[in-house]
Amino acid sequence: MALLYKADPQRGERWRQLFAAHAPDIEFRQWPDIGDPADIHYLAAWQAPDDLATLLPNLKALLAISAGVDQLNLATLPAHLPVARMLDPGITQGMCEYATWAVLSLHRDMLRYRAQQQAGVWEDHALVPASQRRVGVMGLGQQGQAIVNALQPFGFALSGWARSAHDLPGVACFAGDGQLPAFLAQCDILICLLPLTEHTRGILDRRLFAQLPRGAGLINMGRGAHLNEADLLDALASGQLGGAVLDVLAEEPAAADHPFWQHPGIVLTPHIAAMTQPDSAFAVLLDNIRRHQRGERLNGQIDRSDGY
Amino acid sequence: MALLYKADPQRGERWRQLFAAHAPDIEFRQWPDIGDPADIHYLAAWQAPDDLATLLPNLKALLAISAGVDQLNLATLPAHLPVARMLDPGITQGMCEYATWAVLSLHRDMLRYRAQQQAGVWEDHALVPASQRRVGVMGLGQQGQAIVNALQPFGFALSGWARSAHDLPGVACFAGDGQLPAFLAQCDILICLLPLTEHTRGILDRRLFAQLPRGAGLINMGRGAHLNEADLLDALASGQLGGAVLDVLAEEPAAADHPFWQHPGIVLTPHIAAMTQPDSAFAVLLDNIRRHQRGERLNGQIDRSDGY
Repeated sequence: MALLYKADPQRGERWRQLFAAHAPDIEFRQWPDIGDPADIHYLAAWQAPDDLATLLPNLKALLAISAGVDQLNLATLPAHLPVARMLDPGITQGMCEYATWAVLSLHRDMLRYRAQQQAGVWEDHALVPASQRRVGVMGLGQQGQAIVNALQPFGFALSGWARSAHDLPGVACFAGDGQLPAFLAQCDILICLLPLTEHTRGILDRRLFAQLPRGAGLINMGRGAHLNEADLLDALASGQLGGAVLDVLAEEPAAADHPFWQHPGIVLTPHIAAMTQPDSAFAVLLDNIRRHQRGERLNGQIDRSDGY
Repeated sequence: MALLYKADPQRGERWRQLFAAHAPDIEFRQWPDIGDPADIHYLAAWQAPDDLATLLPNLKALLAISAGVDQLNLATLPAHLPVARMLDPGITQGMCEYATWAVLSLHRDMLRYRAQQQAGVWEDHALVPASQRRVGVMGLGQQGQAIVNALQPFGFALSGWARSAHDLPGVACFAGDGQLPAFLAQCDILICLLPLTEHTRGILDRRLFAQLPRGAGLINMGRGAHLNEADLLDALASGQLGGAVLDVLAEEPAAADHPFWQHPGIVLTPHIAAMTQPDSAFAVLLDNIRRHQRGERLNGQIDRSDGY
């Protein structure tokens, strides 16, 4: 019985060591060295190979190596195949660090100070107490909740929105399309952590921006396809948005002439908010394999009809 | 009986309202409209006027409007005059926000990503888990301790150094000149929060930098005079330091041709980590006046021989 690994080749070597040390009953194989395809029961992957059902006839589960699974074309996967997202605590930690950094960057006017440094201007600006800064999180799954918890000690006025109802201490929770306008109207800083689905594609557009308080800040840590990039440029130009911190883009890597690179109102980072760490992710992955072997439902198993 | 306010004139109006509303027995006067100097028992000030003893013959206490008092020439003040620092919770909150932002900026390679954005380069770099990042705080007073507490939830390996011994849960504490080398040798990121005294002036110099791990990051939130600026440029050029976040400079505002403005290894902000907020500072100041009226020692009263 074997597991096939199809993701970052450099980190593959570390995965191999971890399987050898902690799960010698599972043979580790790294793409493209498949060996006998009939042996392969588990696929740990960022993107799945085409024609999965034919290529790996005995595949029992697809374990994504990422927190999101939108890079997989679920429609082409066999309907019976369980698919799980990676719930790596290392990913969550990275997301919390990035979100805190991005919120503080917008809260403390750091985009303006960045521009002032480039221009050699020494000038301070009034400071808004955290208690008067309203920070809203779209998406209240594992990561959204962890980020809300990370922001709590700073004293921000916190809120969250998700498709379904949540009850989180110290957080004003909004749910569903009906409560989206009320949520947006009170977000000085908005963090997008949504999964990318047909319902959320392009959700960060001019219609949404117009519902935020004037001068609001935007943080996109979801997927690039959540954002209408032209609408963002318009909203920054008009002052409807005051700044944006973006870790994802619809096309990655961004072209050298992409207008976001040189925009003073945008901080752009190359999809680095979180990276799957083999050492913490291995334990999660192995636990899921053992669950499957015992006939249990996988942790992070996605609902194929919802797409996340 | 009157209080004389000699600090930022714009914020003075708010101070006047607060005194009128909450302490009508204390007449509020704003520099330079002193009125009869004999009425003035308290001076709330950033910098003291020259010849204080002659100018205000009945002055009973000098209440600094700032967390540090190095801007005051203590030697020229009457020896019997109590002097207190401002222990405004608004200042502490601002310092915690800035320190967290600066630590995350260095921890997550944000200076490098800032340079990449300017150059239009999309490239990620390996991420160091917080548990493997050693963050050390020089200065363990009210603010140093608050900052250590703010950093705890991220899981950094925390240490602190001060002149006197401290015992803080979850923090490796070092004390005195004897333990300074051992402290520095394990600081991947060093935060300076020291008071400025004759002992600490210029402490951030090539000798200190040489004792840090190669590639360490520096954050100066103390005073500009703690830092030897030429030594910092050398340490960044040699790679001994990997980056610096500076909120203070020896000469503020910085000249337009100061080499720090355009340095890719330096984030420079215009002394904005914290600002005294009248609404939170008023309660602290009034409490100190009431303490003095009851014959008690002031909160934040400085030891005139130590200078802080």
